[in-house]
Amino acid sequence: MPTDASYAGFDRMWADLQPVGRVSSGGYRRFAWTREDHTLREWFAGECTARGLDLVEDRMGNQWAWWGDPDATPGVVAGSHLDSVPDGGAYDGPLGVVSALAAVDALRDSGFQPSRPIGVVNFGDEEGARFGVACAGSRVITGELDADRALRLTDADGVTMGEALKRAGRPASIGRDEDAVRRIGSFVELHVEQGRAMADADRYDQDHAAVAIGTDIWPHGRWRLDFAGIANHAGTTRLEDRHDAMLACATAVAEARGLAEKHGCVATIGKLQVEPNGVNAIPSHVTAWLDARGADEAAVLAMVEELSERAAADVSRESWTPTTAFDTSLAGRLHNILGDVPMLGTGAGHDAGILSNAGVSTAMLFVRNPTGVSHSPEEFAEQADCHVGVRALTAVLQDLAG
Amino acid sequence: MPTDASYAGFDRMWADLQPVGRVSSGGYRRFAWTREDHTLREWFAGECTARGLDLVEDRMGNQWAWWGDPDATPGVVAGSHLDSVPDGGAYDGPLGVVSALAAVDALRDSGFQPSRPIGVVNFGDEEGARFGVACAGSRVITGELDADRALRLTDADGVTMGEALKRAGRPASIGRDEDAVRRIGSFVELHVEQGRAMADADRYDQDHAAVAIGTDIWPHGRWRLDFAGIANHAGTTRLEDRHDAMLACATAVAEARGLAEKHGCVATIGKLQVEPNGVNAIPSHVTAWLDARGADEAAVLAMVEELSERAAADVSRESWTPTTAFDTSLAGRLHNILGDVPMLGTGAGHDAGILSNAGVSTAMLFVRNPTGVSHSPEEFAEQADCHVGVRALTAVLQDLAG
Repeated sequence: MPTDASYAGFDRMWADLQPVGRVSSGGYRRFAWTREDHTLREWFAGECTARGLDLVEDRMGNQWAWWGDPDATPGVVAGSHLDSVPDGGAYDGPLGVVSALAAVDALRDSGFQPSRPIGVVNFGDEEGARFGVACAGSRVITGELDADRALRLTDADGVTMGEALKRAGRPASIGRDEDAVRRIGSFVELHVEQGRAMADADRYDQDHAAVAIGTDIWPHGRWRLDFAGIANHAGTTRLEDRHDAMLACATAVAEARGLAEKHGCVATIGKLQVEPNGVNAIPSHVTAWLDARGADEAAVLAMVEELSERAAADVSRESWTPTTAFDTSLAGRLHNILGDVPMLGTGAGHDAGILSNAGVSTAMLFVRNPTGVSHSPEEFAEQADCHVGVRALTAVLQDLAG
Repeated sequence: MPTDASYAGFDRMWADLQPVGRVSSGGYRRFAWTREDHTLREWFAGECTARGLDLVEDRMGNQWAWWGDPDATPGVVAGSHLDSVPDGGAYDGPLGVVSALAAVDALRDSGFQPSRPIGVVNFGDEEGARFGVACAGSRVITGELDADRALRLTDADGVTMGEALKRAGRPASIGRDEDAVRRIGSFVELHVEQGRAMADADRYDQDHAAVAIGTDIWPHGRWRLDFAGIANHAGTTRLEDRHDAMLACATAVAEARGLAEKHGCVATIGKLQVEPNGVNAIPSHVTAWLDARGADEAAVLAMVEELSERAAADVSRESWTPTTAFDTSLAGRLHNILGDVPMLGTGAGHDAGILSNAGVSTAMLFVRNPTGVSHSPEEFAEQADCHVGVRALTAVLQDLAG
């Protein structure tokens, strides 16, 4: 079990990462294959080398640090990612990587000798902030994302991922990596909670809710809503003669909220595109994107169906991912190890979900987030809770690799 | 009065202008000091020269063509502008210029000898589509827009008006032009109606509603509404934990419509800026711009006041222009000339409004718009109504210059 030294190690690593990619908002801009990303990768390599771990990179540049030989026996892997969304928080990603390294320290310090290899992973490009596809690192090595398609993805400046890899001095021969996936006997991703469920005292005894076990990733999808209007003069067009796409969109935004409440799921319209977007022009077209998720697949789909019927829009599905259930027996085992902690599903996607879909035995641990805020500079977890996370992850690795 | 020859001249000029600056939408992109604008100015100069009119440019490059000497006696001026909004229609602006030239033809053909000079004007940069300030041509020469400020205005590519003038081979010494303004004894701007009031059979006898007299320009203003939210994860943030700026904005868009109905004015939210505008992010900030106008000043201000109280936003006024009344005695004289035609106010700004505020005796004529659509490729007026407009303008010029 971790000692004060391993917690001090956690705190030191946390402080080391703090300035990297931090912007004036107080949040982070750590995007794939940028200078900031390079600094983070160098930092990870340095930490692993200092621990005498064997560092390997797979065919997508994800970094794996091994204690023991995973080609002899598939290993127990912990880790997460170091990249961020625009102006994201410090915890989403790095908490899992730093906790995994601290857990290895704790196991080492206790004299633990693993009977199976233990790995720490830093997945690249998890947020998809630059090229628009989340979990690109795990998707490419599992074959879930075609390498040719990945290389052609472009960032906001029109730079392709292929070009970005080249500029970062990376090999362009990315692709499925069966060896890398085969080495993962099981994967445990520790992550800051991105909601406030664990911190809800009505729901969980707060004395035992610093850490939770993830059971599944909610079904989630994206829909595009196209509202057609007629461009017209804002000063001279009578209200009764208007076909205002913005008004139709506003109605749908309010409806989406009401329907999400009714169906017990979440719905967000976070992105809009307005044409012509002029102060004195009635909008001729508004495109809105709906992000819908929930614990129950049928409820999410029923909500979207009802919104589609009500909204004065052409609705088209851009993506849909059914429930990703993590390995039930692994979750049960974690529950035995950690005792009576919350078990909950999450509305966020993770590399753990990609690996689970690829057939890897996968679990997640969440660390309590008192405000529930994530993807924002205000994202936060108490230091004490982070330390409980390190202790839990140490116990899990000890059990699974023992 | 116009003969078939003057209507044929109108039709020929109309056909000449049709291809200039037309884009794939079927609408027009004729922006100030661009190649298309240059073509239109050359066309105007050619038409005036062919008629033996004296062409002069004022200190802002507005083009004036004179029949007679306006330095001897201030003249009667008709005209409008040739530039367009993005994807605008063919009529907004050009109808007034072409009709003025056709009216001059009709007067010439009838052997009319004006006792006061008659002028035709092509105002530059009326729409403000490129540099964001409407009626820049008339505002600069009347001193309503400071020349230094005008020169520093920038277009979407960061090009200043000063630089644009230079690239167009124009002198950079723009400014107030008292001579140009002094030459205008009275100004009559003919314009396509930008609403559907005249075409409303319940309101006006359609046999006498092809042309109307403008009485005033409605009070109008712009307000900025800032909605603050908290950025958060679209999948993991419970509905009850959200501070969604988009939801607050949607409510205000719907409220604005309802309050406009209640107060008998028009309100438009046509432009939005969403932060971070990501599909999976709850918006942390939405800025919306409200354009509000109406026949009655107090009603417009009461509507905005009520919206400000109800909306969960910081509301700040960006501009406010009270009612611009045209010369009442001139409007009465036009009514005597034209007989029982509609008299109405308009929600749109025009160079006529700028001149009126500068003390020029000003009137407007509107030509019926069967759909009411304007600032759009679908903007339209019947050819027969355009010809009635030419006849009306001819009669007005004959009376005022007789």
